[in-house]
Amino acid sequence: MSAIPQKADLLLTGGYVLTMNERQERLVKGAVAIKGSRLVGVGEAEALKAQFVADKVIDCTGAIIMPGLVNAHTHETLTRGLAEDLPLMRWLQEICYPLEKNYTAADMQAAALMNQLEMIRGGITCFIDIFRFADAAAAVARESGLRAIFSPQIIDEFSSFGESLPRTERLIKEWHGCCDNRIQVWVGVHAPYSNSPAVYRQARELANRYGVGLHTHLAETRDEVRLIAEKYGKTPARHLFDLGVFDGPSVVAHCVHLSEEDMDILARQKVGIAYNPTSNIKMAAGIAPVPQMLAKGCRVGLGTDSNLSNNNLDMFEEMRWGSYIQKMAHNDAGILPAYRMLHLATMGSAAALGLDKEIGSLEVGKKADIIVLSLKAPHLWPVYTDRADNVVEQIVYSARADDVITTIVDGRLLMEDKKVLTIDEDRAFHQVQSAAASLYERSFGQ
Amino acid sequence: MSAIPQKADLLLTGGYVLTMNERQERLVKGAVAIKGSRLVGVGEAEALKAQFVADKVIDCTGAIIMPGLVNAHTHETLTRGLAEDLPLMRWLQEICYPLEKNYTAADMQAAALMNQLEMIRGGITCFIDIFRFADAAAAVARESGLRAIFSPQIIDEFSSFGESLPRTERLIKEWHGCCDNRIQVWVGVHAPYSNSPAVYRQARELANRYGVGLHTHLAETRDEVRLIAEKYGKTPARHLFDLGVFDGPSVVAHCVHLSEEDMDILARQKVGIAYNPTSNIKMAAGIAPVPQMLAKGCRVGLGTDSNLSNNNLDMFEEMRWGSYIQKMAHNDAGILPAYRMLHLATMGSAAALGLDKEIGSLEVGKKADIIVLSLKAPHLWPVYTDRADNVVEQIVYSARADDVITTIVDGRLLMEDKKVLTIDEDRAFHQVQSAAASLYERSFGQ
Ligand SMILES: [Zn+2]
Ligand SMILES: [Zn+2]
Repeated sequence: MSAIPQKADLLLTGGYVLTMNERQERLVKGAVAIKGSRLVGVGEAEALKAQFVADKVIDCTGAIIMPGLVNAHTHETLTRGLAEDLPLMRWLQEICYPLEKNYTAADMQAAALMNQLEMIRGGITCFIDIFRFADAAAAVARESGLRAIFSPQIIDEFSSFGESLPRTERLIKEWHGCCDNRIQVWVGVHAPYSNSPAVYRQARELANRYGVGLHTHLAETRDEVRLIAEKYGKTPARHLFDLGVFDGPSVVAHCVHLSEEDMDILARQKVGIAYNPTSNIKMAAGIAPVPQMLAKGCRVGLGTDSNLSNNNLDMFEEMRWGSYIQKMAHNDAGILPAYRMLHLATMGSAAALGLDKEIGSLEVGKKADIIVLSLKAPHLWPVYTDRADNVVEQIVYSARADDVITTIVDGRLLMEDKKVLTIDEDRAFHQVQSAAASLYERSFGQ
Repeated sequence: MSAIPQKADLLLTGGYVLTMNERQERLVKGAVAIKGSRLVGVGEAEALKAQFVADKVIDCTGAIIMPGLVNAHTHETLTRGLAEDLPLMRWLQEICYPLEKNYTAADMQAAALMNQLEMIRGGITCFIDIFRFADAAAAVARESGLRAIFSPQIIDEFSSFGESLPRTERLIKEWHGCCDNRIQVWVGVHAPYSNSPAVYRQARELANRYGVGLHTHLAETRDEVRLIAEKYGKTPARHLFDLGVFDGPSVVAHCVHLSEEDMDILARQKVGIAYNPTSNIKMAAGIAPVPQMLAKGCRVGLGTDSNLSNNNLDMFEEMRWGSYIQKMAHNDAGILPAYRMLHLATMGSAAALGLDKEIGSLEVGKKADIIVLSLKAPHLWPVYTDRADNVVEQIVYSARADDVITTIVDGRLLMEDKKVLTIDEDRAFHQVQSAAASLYERSFGQ
C-alpha cells in the first residue's frame, strides 16, 4: 500500500515518545506530526516520516517528546526571595501588605514576563494564575504564546489589595476566549476566610452567566478550618458546597485539611483540586490526602503555587516532592509512583482545569502542546528502554526544569533548543530588575 | 601608595562574591585571585585588578562567585531510576541483591564517571563516597579533578557484597594523600546492624594506625534503633561510642533517630554528621533533629546520599528541602534559614569532613575550590543587592545544579561556561549506558 504523503507544519522525530494516553503508550523511536495548532500524527518515527511531508523537522534523537506540563495553581508574583524565613504574621504585616499596597499594573507586567519565561523554560505549557492586574498578565501571555487561565483574586476583607467582581466581568468580556481560545478568564475568589458568602454566591453566578470556571483557595491550613468552623459551623469545603460554589466548573487549590465528606463532595461535584506540595511543606500547612482523594475519584492536578512560597516554578521538583512527602507520610515507598505523578502533572492538571479533551496527552486531534526533554545530562543516566524502562522514573525523580529544550503550544515553537523565541530575555531581565527595585523603594523607602 | 602587581594564575572578577567566612562577608562587585592550588586574593574587583596580573581572567559580571559545595555523604552507584516505587524488602531482595552480586570494577568506573560528571556540573567540588571498588572510583577522581574521600563500605553480615579491612588497608597505602592530598582514603563501615562490634573496633584501630577518618551510617531508621536496642541494649550512637568508634575523626550519615544523650556524645566527640534530607524523606526514614544538633554544637554537614535514594545529586535542591521539611516539622517558617543551609553545604560539610582549614569558604590561603553561578535565569530573578540582599535566598530556595557554570578545584578549571574539561562526556555516556545494560543482563537476564 502506497499513499500520497500528507502535509504537516512540524515533525518531531526520533525521540522517545511518552504519550500519556489511556493505554500509557510509549514509543522508543517515535515521532509526532503537527498541522496548525493540532497534532495530526503520533507514532513510530519511520511510519510518520513516510506519512508526512513537513515544512520543518526537528530531530529528537536521544530526547523525550511528551505533553507539556500543566500548572494547576500559581500566582505571577514579582518579589521572589525577599524577606524569607520570617514568621508568617511578621512576613504578612511587614513585607506583604506594604508591597501589595504599592503594586501596579507595570509591576504585574514585569512579573508576568518573569513567570512566563520561567514556565516556558521549565516545560509548562498551560497555567492558571490567581493574582492581580490580569489584563497586564494576559497581554504578556498573548505574546509569550502560553496557554493561560486568569482568575484575578477577589478579596472581600482587604478590599484595597484584591480584585472585584465588576473588574472581573470586564476582563471576561475583554479577554476570555482570546487567541483562538488559548487565553481564558475565570472568576477568582481568594479564600473562604477572606470573602463573605455573598461574594462567593455572586462569583458563581457571574461565572455561570459567562460559562467560565471559578478558582479559589480551600482548606490550606488548620487555622482556616478552625476559623470557618467557628464562623459557619462547617468545614470549608462543605461551606462552599452549601453556598452553591461548586455548581459549575471549579478548581480549588491546596485541600490539605479535608474530611471524608469533603472529599466525597469534591469528587461528586467534579471539582478540580490543585495539589501544591512544595508550598504546603514550606508554609508548614501540612500534607494533602492525595492518595485518598485519588481513591475517591477526585480530579487532582499539580501546581507550583507562587514564587513567594515555592520559590521556583519547577514542575519536575514538584512531581518528585509531591511523591516523596506522601511516601514519608504513609510510610509506603510504593505510594504515588513516578507514572502517577507525571499523570497528575499532565492529564491530571488538564482534567482539573476542564481541558483534558484538548491537552494533557499526545493524541491525534488534540492541541499540539508539547515539550522535548534532553537526556544528555549525567543526572538522567543511565537510560533503560529495552527490557527495563526507566524513562518516566528519570523524568520524575531526577529531571529538572533545565532539561527541557523545546516548548510548543498550539503548534507554535515558544522555545527551541533552549532559546526562547517569543520573549526578549535581556529586555525582560532589565524590566524585572527595575520594577522590583522601584516596588521595593515605594514600599520600604524613606 | 603604588605597588608592583603580584602574579596570579587566574582571576575571577566582577561577580557577587559570597565568601562564607566568619564575618559572613559579601562583595557586590568582587573578585578572587588564584595562584597554584590556593586563593591569594579575595576582595573588591577594582582593588584586586590593581593588585594582581593574572594569566587568565574570567569575567563574572552578573554571576555569583562562591565556595564549592561539599557533599558529606554519597555512594557512586550506577542503576539510578531502576525499579522505583517498590516496598523496601522487595526492592532489596529482587533488585539490589542481584545487582550487587554482579557488580564489577568496570561498573564502578562507569558509575564514578557518571556521578563525578554530575557533581562537577552541579557545583560539588568535594565528596565522600561510601561504596565499593574504590580504586576504580579513585582513578576516575584522579582524572576528573574533584576532591574526594573514599571509604569503601565494609559489610560483615553479607560479606559477598561488601568490602573488607585488608582491602581497605591496601587502598589506604595505594591512594591516601594522592594528587597533593586531593584524594583521601578512610575506613568505611556500612552500619551498626550489618557489622559486628569486632569489625567496628578493628576499623577504628586501622583508621587510627594510618591517621585517617572513619565513615559509617548511623541511626537511619526506627528499625535500626529497635534492632540495636534488642541486640546491645543501647542506642546505635551509644553502642558505637562504647566501642571506641568515635575515638578519632568520624563522619556518620543520617542520624534521624537520636536521643538527647546521643547528640551530646556526637557533639563532645566532634563527630561529623551528614544530614541527608531527600533520602530520609523518600525512604520514609524520618526527619533528623538538625536544629537540636546545631544547638548542641554538633558538626553538621549536608549530603545527597546515593542516586538510588535521591535520585539526583543536586545540593541546591538538598539545601532547600533540608530547610522546608524542618519548617514543616517544627511549624516554624524561621527555622534553618537560607544562609544557615548554605553554610551547612559549604563550611558545615567541610568541618564535618575535617577539611574546614582547607576548604568551605573563600579566604586567602585556602584551597581554590570555587564555583560560579549564573543569575541569567528567570527563576533567580529579581536580584536585590542594594538595600535588600536576596542573593543567598535565590541560591538556596530557587537555584538548581544547572545554574552552576564554572567549577574549580585546587585552582584547576574542571568546568568552564558549562563545558566540562576533565571528562569526555560523550564517551562517559556510552560507557555508562553499556555498563548499565550489561549489569542488568547479568543480574536479570535468562
Ligand atoms: Zn495560592
Ligand atoms: Zn548512605
